[in-house]
Amino acid sequence: MTHALKVALAGLGTVGAGVIKLLDANRALIERRAGRGIEIVAVSARDRTRDRGVDIARFDWVDDAAALPRRDDVDAIVELIGGADGPALTLARDTIAAGKAFVTANKAMIAHHGLELAAAAEKRDVALKYEAAVAGGIPVIKGLREGAAANEIARVYGILNGTCNYILTTMESEGRGFADVLADAQARGFAEADPSFDVDGIDAAHKLAILASLSFGTALDFDAIAVSGIRGVIAEDIAEARALGFRVRLVGLAEADAHGLFQRVHPCLVPADHPLAHVAGALNAVVAEGNFVGRLFFEGAGAGEGPTASAVVADLIDVARGEYGPAFAMPVASLAHPRAAQTGERRGRAYLRFAVIDRPGVLAEITAAMRDAGVSIESMIQRGGGVEDGEEVQIIMVTHTGPEARVTAALERLRGSPSLAGDPMLMHILDL
Amino acid sequence: MTHALKVALAGLGTVGAGVIKLLDANRALIERRAGRGIEIVAVSARDRTRDRGVDIARFDWVDDAAALPRRDDVDAIVELIGGADGPALTLARDTIAAGKAFVTANKAMIAHHGLELAAAAEKRDVALKYEAAVAGGIPVIKGLREGAAANEIARVYGILNGTCNYILTTMESEGRGFADVLADAQARGFAEADPSFDVDGIDAAHKLAILASLSFGTALDFDAIAVSGIRGVIAEDIAEARALGFRVRLVGLAEADAHGLFQRVHPCLVPADHPLAHVAGALNAVVAEGNFVGRLFFEGAGAGEGPTASAVVADLIDVARGEYGPAFAMPVASLAHPRAAQTGERRGRAYLRFAVIDRPGVLAEITAAMRDAGVSIESMIQRGGGVEDGEEVQIIMVTHTGPEARVTAALERLRGSPSLAGDPMLMHILDL
Repeated sequence: MTHALKVALAGLGTVGAGVIKLLDANRALIERRAGRGIEIVAVSARDRTRDRGVDIARFDWVDDAAALPRRDDVDAIVELIGGADGPALTLARDTIAAGKAFVTANKAMIAHHGLELAAAAEKRDVALKYEAAVAGGIPVIKGLREGAAANEIARVYGILNGTCNYILTTMESEGRGFADVLADAQARGFAEADPSFDVDGIDAAHKLAILASLSFGTALDFDAIAVSGIRGVIAEDIAEARALGFRVRLVGLAEADAHGLFQRVHPCLVPADHPLAHVAGALNAVVAEGNFVGRLFFEGAGAGEGPTASAVVADLIDVARGEYGPAFAMPVASLAHPRAAQTGERRGRAYLRFAVIDRPGVLAEITAAMRDAGVSIESMIQRGGGVEDGEEVQIIMVTHTGPEARVTAALERLRGSPSLAGDPMLMHILDL
Repeated sequence: MTHALKVALAGLGTVGAGVIKLLDANRALIERRAGRGIEIVAVSARDRTRDRGVDIARFDWVDDAAALPRRDDVDAIVELIGGADGPALTLARDTIAAGKAFVTANKAMIAHHGLELAAAAEKRDVALKYEAAVAGGIPVIKGLREGAAANEIARVYGILNGTCNYILTTMESEGRGFADVLADAQARGFAEADPSFDVDGIDAAHKLAILASLSFGTALDFDAIAVSGIRGVIAEDIAEARALGFRVRLVGLAEADAHGLFQRVHPCLVPADHPLAHVAGALNAVVAEGNFVGRLFFEGAGAGEGPTASAVVADLIDVARGEYGPAFAMPVASLAHPRAAQTGERRGRAYLRFAVIDRPGVLAEITAAMRDAGVSIESMIQRGGGVEDGEEVQIIMVTHTGPEARVTAALERLRGSPSLAGDPMLMHILDL
């Protein structure tokens, strides 16, 4: 038996406490599987005294995490501080420079600085692992990096944010509005006090950038992702989508084709018989389409103490086994740098909802804009109103498959129209 | 760049041809991901002249696969011959003894001889890889062995045979009988001419034995699996199950608890909202429940040229990267040897169907047997008959949760009863 892998934890929030609990609970099993023990020797966090439900007195306490990479008794550092830059990034750089393994759950940092860190890790031949950064406990980084490694992946997509999925599925099952369900989720601790990273799609975009890089062998390109969140989704959207045979889900999708690399996070209409339509509550799910394996589907808990700790420790087991390689599956120099494909180059069906003031000519104005932009309508529903002029009503349309650019052009034509009571809602239909 | 991994293929059926096609199609990508090329140098099969849709003239032809391990120009051998024993097993032993990596899709051989081969591979420190043996293209071996490695797994189960799932889902969607759908599947090449390995559950049991070993860190114990297949499932079972909110699926399930290791392959009633209920056609799916990660769900193609080749080549990429370890995630000597738990020690709900001759007293006889065995009935339906005495009718019951042993005892009491027109059908309900 080789000596134990000696680990330092930086950050002792929910996940940090989970990692300690997991290593305590499954110690013997992990030692059998890893071929050696995995032992925490030092911890660092802001507040030493907070009750975390685990005994941390047995570990060396380090006030400043920045001191951890200099410790001779540490083989690997687990970063659970968070934030794309600042102390987390400094710690990552210093850990790798010190020739130690670096394990993180920090999706923002990997999405923004992953290539720099991967290049440094490659140079020093140390492990840079981040399974917990995407889809929590689901081993999807490993699934893509290794499990599907024989395939050219044409498309990777999924439900990458549990908070949004919880909100959307609760709106669906209880017929409630976004703000109402969000407030409830915040009260229960399922959503952050500042929910914008989640509900505006940023968190999902961080994860999507990472999945795309691994799937396509391309450099991370977070800035090219078209991101929109779920704040504009109203209860009527969900009800109408359902009536049409769809579910509303926040989907991160990346495709690589002749147009280049396309990446988008967007609320979508998912057909009721698609696996993503069955992803309940705060779960995450990822679909990858390989040219030989076909469609692979992974589902599980995307966040939380236990699942995230499971992914962090899986990475530590790989480090303990000596089974790691380039962070993005191939040397950074081998990653391709495709052009970023634009939304407008895609084709598909779209769902559109217009909140309009119900008065003569409104429908004609909207349908004329569609016609003039070359958008063909598959179905249309008008709900509410009709009782008296001037009331706000919802007009819902589903387009035939066509260039997305035309739908954008049609909406452009309607911009500022006094008939519209608010911004139109556009959701793409996931016909996959 | 290290030299290419030199591979010999033994067996050139569908999967063998698929491996050649895959390595041709994705050559450059695989070289980037594996860090070196993967190159077939020699092939062996029964018939040299058969058209396989790939050019094999460029490889060394070897008449007898048994000669492959002696070749100095081969680093790894891929065995696609099949069969638990015979030439496949000899090839496995000789390859490992020669210090070469061994990759196989052979579930029967791994289920029966995996421990012997793993011990030999450990001794020689060579790779023994078998991702393709379970659930085809789904990287579930890797998912359990590495992705979920931090967890104590309490239960692993899934749809492990695509032929059975195709038959059951087709019976469901088209309301047809087993024999009819099977004949159709055979005509279309979805089922073997001799379907018994599939429809009698043996194939699923081979895979389950492997999943259980990996999940629980226990020695393979194929012989302890209680196996029943789907020949007894009739169209009425599927329709009644559906009316009760269930789908009928052939499920392989393994659990480790204080009773020991429980393993069973059995047609089950799966609640309509369970992920396994949505597994369509010939797909496979595996659920693993970890003590920290919670429920993980993997779905994809369980067989076929492309998916199986994808798994074989994923193994070769691991070998090329030097990332392998003990075949069952830990040294064979570390695997536990729990007692085999018996069906009767479990508790659950059951679905029962009795084909009876409709005459006075039949229902009383059956319900008395249930009562005397201590089985409590949750619901009962009688279909057909009622028009005249002596007709065959189906009586369907769902029991309350209780010891399975009592249901067995009740059926034992009814054995040989002249009221029964055939063997009763028993399916357990998957309340998971």
